Amino acid sequence: MNSKKSIAILGSTGSIGTQALEVIATHSEKFEVEVLTAQNNADRLIEQAKKFKPNAVVILNEDHYEKVKAALVPLHIKVFAGENALASVVQMDSIDLVLTALVGFSGLKPTLSAIEAGKNIALANKETLVVAGDLVTARARQKGVNIYPVDSEHSAIFQCIVGEFYNPIEKIILTASGGPFRGMKKNELEKVTKAQALKHPNWTMGAKVTIDSATLMNKGLEVIEAKWLFGLKPEQIEVVVHPQSIIHSLVQFYDGSIKAQLGLPDMRLPIQFAMSYPERLNTDFPRFDFLKYPSFTFEKPDTETFRNLALAFEAMNCGGNAPCVLNAANEVAVTEFLNEKIGFFRMTEIIEQCLAKVKFISQPTLDDYLQTDIETRAKAKELIR
Amino acid sequence: MNSKKSIAILGSTGSIGTQALEVIATHSEKFEVEVLTAQNNADRLIEQAKKFKPNAVVILNEDHYEKVKAALVPLHIKVFAGENALASVVQMDSIDLVLTALVGFSGLKPTLSAIEAGKNIALANKETLVVAGDLVTARARQKGVNIYPVDSEHSAIFQCIVGEFYNPIEKIILTASGGPFRGMKKNELEKVTKAQALKHPNWTMGAKVTIDSATLMNKGLEVIEAKWLFGLKPEQIEVVVHPQSIIHSLVQFYDGSIKAQLGLPDMRLPIQFAMSYPERLNTDFPRFDFLKYPSFTFEKPDTETFRNLALAFEAMNCGGNAPCVLNAANEVAVTEFLNEKIGFFRMTEIIEQCLAKVKFISQPTLDDYLQTDIETRAKAKELIR
Repeated sequence: MNSKKSIAILGSTGSIGTQALEVIATHSEKFEVEVLTAQNNADRLIEQAKKFKPNAVVILNEDHYEKVKAALVPLHIKVFAGENALASVVQMDSIDLVLTALVGFSGLKPTLSAIEAGKNIALANKETLVVAGDLVTARARQKGVNIYPVDSEHSAIFQCIVGEFYNPIEKIILTASGGPFRGMKKNELEKVTKAQALKHPNWTMGAKVTIDSATLMNKGLEVIEAKWLFGLKPEQIEVVVHPQSIIHSLVQFYDGSIKAQLGLPDMRLPIQFAMSYPERLNTDFPRFDFLKYPSFTFEKPDTETFRNLALAFEAMNCGGNAPCVLNAANEVAVTEFLNEKIGFFRMTEIIEQCLAKVKFISQPTLDDYLQTDIETRAKAKELIR
Repeated sequence: MNSKKSIAILGSTGSIGTQALEVIATHSEKFEVEVLTAQNNADRLIEQAKKFKPNAVVILNEDHYEKVKAALVPLHIKVFAGENALASVVQMDSIDLVLTALVGFSGLKPTLSAIEAGKNIALANKETLVVAGDLVTARARQKGVNIYPVDSEHSAIFQCIVGEFYNPIEKIILTASGGPFRGMKKNELEKVTKAQALKHPNWTMGAKVTIDSATLMNKGLEVIEAKWLFGLKPEQIEVVVHPQSIIHSLVQFYDGSIKAQLGLPDMRLPIQFAMSYPERLNTDFPRFDFLKYPSFTFEKPDTETFRNLALAFEAMNCGGNAPCVLNAANEVAVTEFLNEKIGFFRMTEIIEQCLAKVKFISQPTLDDYLQTDIETRAKAKELIR
């Protein structure tokens, strides 16, 4: 009998994926790698597969298929390519848990596919819930699938409600570092560059989420993600800026008691907890020390300057396909900002215009979401041209 | 069938007792009062009994027996007097939970008696565990009795480990306000008065615990209490000064993750949680607001000035009857400080001298503890004369 948890990592070559593999390597008595997948980074995927010996790998960009196949088939590792392959590989019987660490909208379909097959999900792809949180959480409930959050904020909340799942939540408070431009006003922000936006004060993350942190859109997406993960009403979710990023988020129960999860910013911890829950595993990660952090500060987020956060709250309040529009417009805007085609504030304008122009659907089907995503991307690109 | 929890409150006329009754009054659908007891305050005991209609009351000071009897027997409330009566009343079949809110060493015997009868304990009398934590926790385990902490710090830790009882604790961090004299040095402290010591910056509590907060002995007693409540080694317990008293304490698990419980300083919350656990009950207590507390600060406790805390750690490390000596000497010293017979630092000297002079017993029996208590009090009084 195999008592190890068999993990599929979707997006294994990214920041979350590689840290997940680090956790697995440290706790090889608990976990084994069943599937690895990558978008483009064939070399790293091959290297990871050689080390972790998964049952199968998927390279999404089919151009790299032959290369990956040549490297891994001799090692008796199955090699697949393309989106459809991904959707069926995540349903393999031997998988216990699917870690979805894909970037953006692309996480939606494979996550739904894994849920369909009854796989528990460690969710690092917040866009899946932002775009189609209603469908995804409803299907997870029907299939008896647990969704364990990997985002540090949502992991914090999950850690705080362990053992209290029946105690009503009054509200949650997501903490935000404020990003590299905290305290700046519009005139100072107009000329910030990609390089400046990519320098996050506390966290080392992928490029997309780092830009989202600089605009506060990341916190906006997290607000919407939290609504679905924890079954909250919009008015139950608050954001407080906490520049030290030590308190990762807080839950207030309806007796008034607040619980918080804290620690040094280190994504390996929430990744590990999502994989090992309900058990915690010993680590040698650096420990937090109050004497090195003699002060925690808190302030209101400046949503007049960083309007993306306000837009995310608006989209959440609208419901329907509005968060899907928000997300698609933001993905295009961030890509073009990273391509140095547009400036910092132009990102916000594009999202706002897409929200105004793409047709609102109050109760979208999955097809509606897919269509909204396509339509919004086209609209955003048109606005940029 | 009676689905309400029947509560016995030992020490109902004190600060914790009256707040517990306030909680019970608010949640009369959940709780009913079975027993009330008081040391001396017959008038308030009578008043409480008239309102809450317990099955029985105990007045410890037998001088007040006739008065209480005359007032309550006509209302079909049983009236008892004296320590022995208390020890048997807490064993009544109809009691579900015993809230021990007595002050000092006097809590030990009735708590043991309640445990003997298999009653769950809501423990507000930290001295019970300080004095005889080994015996009390061993007996509770044998009897399958749960001890729910009421002290805000221990409640915080308990709230943080709910749902994680099998996950090893790496350490706990008890927060301390630092008391009214935080930051003062020896020369400034030499002349502080009883009135100054009774002004706690954040908490409203009984006189004994308020003085203990001013000397940091309260934190020392809490450290020892925590050792027994949570089965920790001395080196797993730390103290950090957090003057705002918003974070009530923290737990670090062995994966490095830290959980904290926070809120405005309000004893009703931990009292209620100890009575309602595992359920939380809705309250209208004032809520915490980050915008009113834009900064939390942390510092090392100054154990050179406030030596009581260091003495408590030493007594814990010694084990045996040393914490019992510490507690008895402290009770005498605080009483005499409140009587304005001795100064602030003299309290520390008395405790230190008692620790040096009372015979050390490494594995005391209950009788040894009772004897140590008597002997230490005599020694302390002799030192004061």
